[in-house]
Amino acid sequence: MSAQAPHNTLLIPGPIEFDDAVLSSMSHYAESHVAPGFVKVFGETLTLTRKLFQSTNPSAQPFIIAGSGTLGWDLVSANLIERGENALVLNTGYFGDSFGQCLECYGAQVTHLKAPIGDRPSLEEIEKTLKQKPYKLITLTHVDTSTGVLSDVKGVAQLVRRVSPETLVIVDGVCSVGSEEIAFDEWDLDAVVTASQKAIGCPPGLSIVMTSGRAIQRAQSRKTPPGSYYAAISNWLPIMQNYENNKPSYFATPPTQLVHALHTTLSQITADVPGRFAIHTQVSDKVKAAAAALGLKQLAPRPECQAHGMTAMYLPEGLAPPDVLPGLLKRGVIFAAGLHKEIATKYIRFGHMGVSVTDPNRKDVDNALAALKEALTEAKQAKGL
Amino acid sequence: MSAQAPHNTLLIPGPIEFDDAVLSSMSHYAESHVAPGFVKVFGETLTLTRKLFQSTNPSAQPFIIAGSGTLGWDLVSANLIERGENALVLNTGYFGDSFGQCLECYGAQVTHLKAPIGDRPSLEEIEKTLKQKPYKLITLTHVDTSTGVLSDVKGVAQLVRRVSPETLVIVDGVCSVGSEEIAFDEWDLDAVVTASQKAIGCPPGLSIVMTSGRAIQRAQSRKTPPGSYYAAISNWLPIMQNYENNKPSYFATPPTQLVHALHTTLSQITADVPGRFAIHTQVSDKVKAAAAALGLKQLAPRPECQAHGMTAMYLPEGLAPPDVLPGLLKRGVIFAAGLHKEIATKYIRFGHMGVSVTDPNRKDVDNALAALKEALTEAKQAKGL
Repeated sequence: MSAQAPHNTLLIPGPIEFDDAVLSSMSHYAESHVAPGFVKVFGETLTLTRKLFQSTNPSAQPFIIAGSGTLGWDLVSANLIERGENALVLNTGYFGDSFGQCLECYGAQVTHLKAPIGDRPSLEEIEKTLKQKPYKLITLTHVDTSTGVLSDVKGVAQLVRRVSPETLVIVDGVCSVGSEEIAFDEWDLDAVVTASQKAIGCPPGLSIVMTSGRAIQRAQSRKTPPGSYYAAISNWLPIMQNYENNKPSYFATPPTQLVHALHTTLSQITADVPGRFAIHTQVSDKVKAAAAALGLKQLAPRPECQAHGMTAMYLPEGLAPPDVLPGLLKRGVIFAAGLHKEIATKYIRFGHMGVSVTDPNRKDVDNALAALKEALTEAKQAKGL
Repeated sequence: MSAQAPHNTLLIPGPIEFDDAVLSSMSHYAESHVAPGFVKVFGETLTLTRKLFQSTNPSAQPFIIAGSGTLGWDLVSANLIERGENALVLNTGYFGDSFGQCLECYGAQVTHLKAPIGDRPSLEEIEKTLKQKPYKLITLTHVDTSTGVLSDVKGVAQLVRRVSPETLVIVDGVCSVGSEEIAFDEWDLDAVVTASQKAIGCPPGLSIVMTSGRAIQRAQSRKTPPGSYYAAISNWLPIMQNYENNKPSYFATPPTQLVHALHTTLSQITADVPGRFAIHTQVSDKVKAAAAALGLKQLAPRPECQAHGMTAMYLPEGLAPPDVLPGLLKRGVIFAAGLHKEIATKYIRFGHMGVSVTDPNRKDVDNALAALKEALTEAKQAKGL
């Protein structure tokens, strides 16, 4: 039995359902942000973040900062590229557009390599584009929350190292970290930007960014000052290093209660990181098979482009999200409507991440699939389809 | 009896002790950030923020954003002034220095008008400085957390309107909002930047900024784009307006649990805003009288320069914070060490804000004063003073 009040099950692609232990860690009494107790918790949380990314290279550096996931784009754009330099955005949906806007805000010259909806740019196209001019960094959205398209992070990183080794590889992992495999050191990534509220299973309010030694070095050897104060790596680096070395330090007051929640969920996750990816894949396969059995096509037709923590599915011809979502809600299940502007009225999104997937006592996914079947039937009948 | 685990009482100038109801609001089950329930709570929280600032002018606009208080400086510096324009910082301690650095990061030409430690620039000096060149904005730290110096916000705002009416009046209210009187409309302020974790009594993790119609207009009529993406008023303004009008909207995922906590504490505070200022003044007077009776001098010698939510006191000659703070801790009381670089080893800081002051069932302040007396006696004896 959950300690939480009865409620509809939140199965959107983030925020997600909370584990009781994670939620109750936020009820910790007030602490000074520079007292030994909190310093230890924050320091351990940074170390657990390394484990989450399967990173053991001491030159890699995690950052945990009060903010939404969006803030991670500023951290990249204000520190790792300078005004007038080139950035290549592999665009697989809404979030590629927005990351591009953030880069432009700090003066980068942005090229978008856009894939058709549901697909991702091919390695051949990326190689061709990378050879056209020198790019300071390349960004890719690991899972685009708007479309459920999965990018080939490992493949792109290998390609970049081969054809443009100085280009930093930046991953938007807001909708992937915790549900999709990421081997930060082994794949030789430069930054993964994420947030607390998706597959990491913590409430929203934390921007989490993992950076390589190469990225830190790039930030430290800028010709011009960083473009942001709150998102300046130079302001946060000593703070993160000090906390992880158990030394209090101050730049801005850390969000103590959220850090406790993150500590709890990362302790759970890092007990078995590969196992976590495996169960997300297994449940995703089940969801996708069930959707197919209901005649629902995914936005991402190719299996290798399909995320494992969410499924974006076209509704049958003649149905829109308002025809189906209320029927789901009536059955205690919350899915999300479409988000990609061009097709928003044609599809729905089902988030299957975190505790809804990993807790064997929960039947969230099975219940959702049963509710989806019923709600679809009901909606078709209502429309005479 | 508190529902919280037994713990030492946190009486630093923020974060502060939590009210049980505020803390438990964070245990709310997971919600979609765009679902009716949360949209209503967020919208109401924005409306309550207006009340907190005693503002009824519809052209004023509150912002509530995931971030530390520091982020508010970016919101001001990246939107309300452009590269090469002049900013005047009334500097009463550590936080004036830092706000100046933030303004410079976004290209402002910063002039510091620095007061001696424990004092504030006089209205005469400010008037003289304002007449020397056109300033786009002036900043003042309402209460400098490092020194406990209180600024004359009303007086400065009146002066600015008289001698330099186009200059925006920007108040850093991180350590004042909720304990010091602020009448946003009546005093004709342009921005008050604050954070959740001090006298507002919410856990840390929210940047709260109140802006005037004049400030919004300045942001909207910039010649150059805003200097930040995450802190761009243009990105957040429609979001805040939509939520307050009960319409879901998305730029970045709001920190749902912290918004619930803020809603709870603001509901409590806004039940009697003038009463809240009165009780903080009353308790502050008691603390300052008790400190004087113990022979402790305040950093701010003049009463009109003394904050009402904290007291910064010099220790007796021969004693440093490490001689006294452990004695307080032994008695269950946490004070803060000095923060102002030049004199950090000579003083301690006592935060008396929020529930420790307003809850008649708590004896936090009385207990702290008793503990302070004992700890000082003990420390003097140990040093043979």
